[in-house]
Amino acid sequence: METELKMINITRLKDRFEQMAAIGRTESGGITRLALSSEDLQARKLLIDWMQALGLQTRYDDVGNIYGRLEGSDDEASVVLTGSHIDTVPNGGKFDGTLGVIAALEVVETMVEQNIAPKHPVEIVAFTNEEGARFTPQMLGSGVIAKEFSKEFVYRRKDLKGLEFHRELQKIGFLGLECNRVKNIKAFLEFHIEQGPVLEAENIPVGVVEGIAGFAWMEVIINGQSNHSGTTPMRMRRDSLVTAAAIIKELHDFARDKEDGTVITTGRMQTHPNIINAVPGQTIFSIDVRHAEQDRLAWTIDEIKQIIEKNVNEATMDYTLEVIWSKNPARFSPEIIAAIEKVCKLHRIPYKRMISGAGHDAMYMSAITETAMIFAPSAAGKSHCKEEDTSWHDIEKGANVLYDTICDLAIIGEAN
Amino acid sequence: METELKMINITRLKDRFEQMAAIGRTESGGITRLALSSEDLQARKLLIDWMQALGLQTRYDDVGNIYGRLEGSDDEASVVLTGSHIDTVPNGGKFDGTLGVIAALEVVETMVEQNIAPKHPVEIVAFTNEEGARFTPQMLGSGVIAKEFSKEFVYRRKDLKGLEFHRELQKIGFLGLECNRVKNIKAFLEFHIEQGPVLEAENIPVGVVEGIAGFAWMEVIINGQSNHSGTTPMRMRRDSLVTAAAIIKELHDFARDKEDGTVITTGRMQTHPNIINAVPGQTIFSIDVRHAEQDRLAWTIDEIKQIIEKNVNEATMDYTLEVIWSKNPARFSPEIIAAIEKVCKLHRIPYKRMISGAGHDAMYMSAITETAMIFAPSAAGKSHCKEEDTSWHDIEKGANVLYDTICDLAIIGEAN
Repeated sequence: METELKMINITRLKDRFEQMAAIGRTESGGITRLALSSEDLQARKLLIDWMQALGLQTRYDDVGNIYGRLEGSDDEASVVLTGSHIDTVPNGGKFDGTLGVIAALEVVETMVEQNIAPKHPVEIVAFTNEEGARFTPQMLGSGVIAKEFSKEFVYRRKDLKGLEFHRELQKIGFLGLECNRVKNIKAFLEFHIEQGPVLEAENIPVGVVEGIAGFAWMEVIINGQSNHSGTTPMRMRRDSLVTAAAIIKELHDFARDKEDGTVITTGRMQTHPNIINAVPGQTIFSIDVRHAEQDRLAWTIDEIKQIIEKNVNEATMDYTLEVIWSKNPARFSPEIIAAIEKVCKLHRIPYKRMISGAGHDAMYMSAITETAMIFAPSAAGKSHCKEEDTSWHDIEKGANVLYDTICDLAIIGEAN
Repeated sequence: METELKMINITRLKDRFEQMAAIGRTESGGITRLALSSEDLQARKLLIDWMQALGLQTRYDDVGNIYGRLEGSDDEASVVLTGSHIDTVPNGGKFDGTLGVIAALEVVETMVEQNIAPKHPVEIVAFTNEEGARFTPQMLGSGVIAKEFSKEFVYRRKDLKGLEFHRELQKIGFLGLECNRVKNIKAFLEFHIEQGPVLEAENIPVGVVEGIAGFAWMEVIINGQSNHSGTTPMRMRRDSLVTAAAIIKELHDFARDKEDGTVITTGRMQTHPNIINAVPGQTIFSIDVRHAEQDRLAWTIDEIKQIIEKNVNEATMDYTLEVIWSKNPARFSPEIIAAIEKVCKLHRIPYKRMISGAGHDAMYMSAITETAMIFAPSAAGKSHCKEEDTSWHDIEKGANVLYDTICDLAIIGEAN
């Protein structure tokens, strides 16, 4: 049985959440709130209003990251940071990112309400352009904080219309000062939906995230020979699609049978000339491979190359393989993970240690501070779509875990 | 050793061929001579000039098929018809279709030159819109002669710009009378490039074509579940592309291992949402299956359906399968095939009985008259492209076989 110590107010959290979800709502029921758009501006203003109503000091930095600060009793103490992002993909869901920001507000409101005076300042953050749906790459706001990207690089990013990040940030009035960036961080904790099906399938309300899987994205081109589908006997063909199909199936089965968390996906695929009565002369496809451990990821990439090479050689074709993007795995803080687990155990909330297969602002933040994440279950594992959903019962549990962990870090934790 | 009875004049044939190949030549070296275009008009005029220079009576019918007639000694005798088409696909080759028309001219010129007075009239034909590259479907000209299509159906065909066949035919001045259609046909013989790699691979200069494979074109849609590629464990996926890949590979191997001339091809393929970091929720692909025997084709279609069903069921997905177009096989005339073989043997020209995997005007003509085809080798099996090629040595052999067979049919054959 769980204890009844539910300290956050789920009705208040839900009310804020629904107000935010009304901004950028599309006819189809999804949310379009692209970074630095007028919808994003509206959401930013609402967030700042809420922060100010709670008596927080608000500011935004030179890439538009928004902060709301609850002072600690020790002026010099390091900052306990929590939050996520409020931008969305086109026609995305209500929960992705937003949940972590709204829950952070609820955590701080609960602390204020309960007259908790933390030693450490607590800051709520909403990072700019996490999704990468308007300006690529993803996670520009947290990437600047973590020194992954320079300010100049971020300013020059352009959207598909050619509009520059810097000008668009200025236009919505959120070009702040570099000295406003969060500094002297003790810890970062991000509450987010899982965006996968595991917690729901196992009926577990809380995921304690140990890290983010590293990945490599590859583009493979198989070159065979295009021929007439009617006049070319089967044994005289060099069908690039058949070879690609054999590879895709083998890679899938290889990852499935390893049972070690490896995921391999072909999401994008194209054949040439792509007409019904021609043997495909060229097939291009993507591979997305992820694993939590750097050495296993590197080994798996080697195995993938061998599987491709074997199939292409058997079919007497040739191929090219290009790694178009990759990231090393991120490992989160054992201390913060232990703190979250302690809270879950105290409240008898079932939890599961897990790896995030998706990227998050916490990935960059983990390079510069003690970091962890808390996941809430995603209905049917869906995200980035209007069907994205999480039960309020689960959100309440997750937000309470967030609350207790933030309190632990801010009240009890040592200053540094 | 072959006998030295080479009766056609390959230099003359080649000269006409090159003149025709200059019409519609593109910068890249291919030929664009779409049906009823200004290039087609230029080619038609040249053809009629050549026919008239040979003393042939020329005419065109109500769908623009062009005829050149060499009278027989018996006014009432049935017509020995030979020819092909002079339209091309965009950036197509010089040989496809054109070779059969130019060779027919050479055959008649050789007969005239040798003072052969056939009992039967010999008519050269150039059928309209064989390729279907401008007006769909293919083979409209021969289709009307064989009553496969009504005149009204053909007249209403539109190209991609919305221009109607009837108006375009009128515009180039080739809207003739219905009574000009070829009638009272004794036999139709079409000389054509193989458009496949078999003759070249076996080093055989002449293909004696026994028929045209029947085919079915299908569209298959596999419905799985789209998910995030990073957050969805392998065993919780319903990846439509992996299932499609397994099917495509299995169908290929099934056809290859049957070794009975069955061909199965997936030429067109599309996944949704087709992004690198999403498990494909839906995959759509085509199947083109061909076989020379109707009962084997029907059996193979059943097998294909079972292979798809088995794979989809194993993966707990669903699917739809639609047959979007199909044609029964055409069987050519045993008498004409025997006549061609006799000629090959007489001249000691190596030949191979074979099935055409591609459609030709002879397919429709075989429904209304004794029909066969003679194939010349295609370099690397290529056609419908600028690389389309056949050696003049092989063309000479094929044209001599055509000449002797036409003489046999026109001089010796019985009237009916």
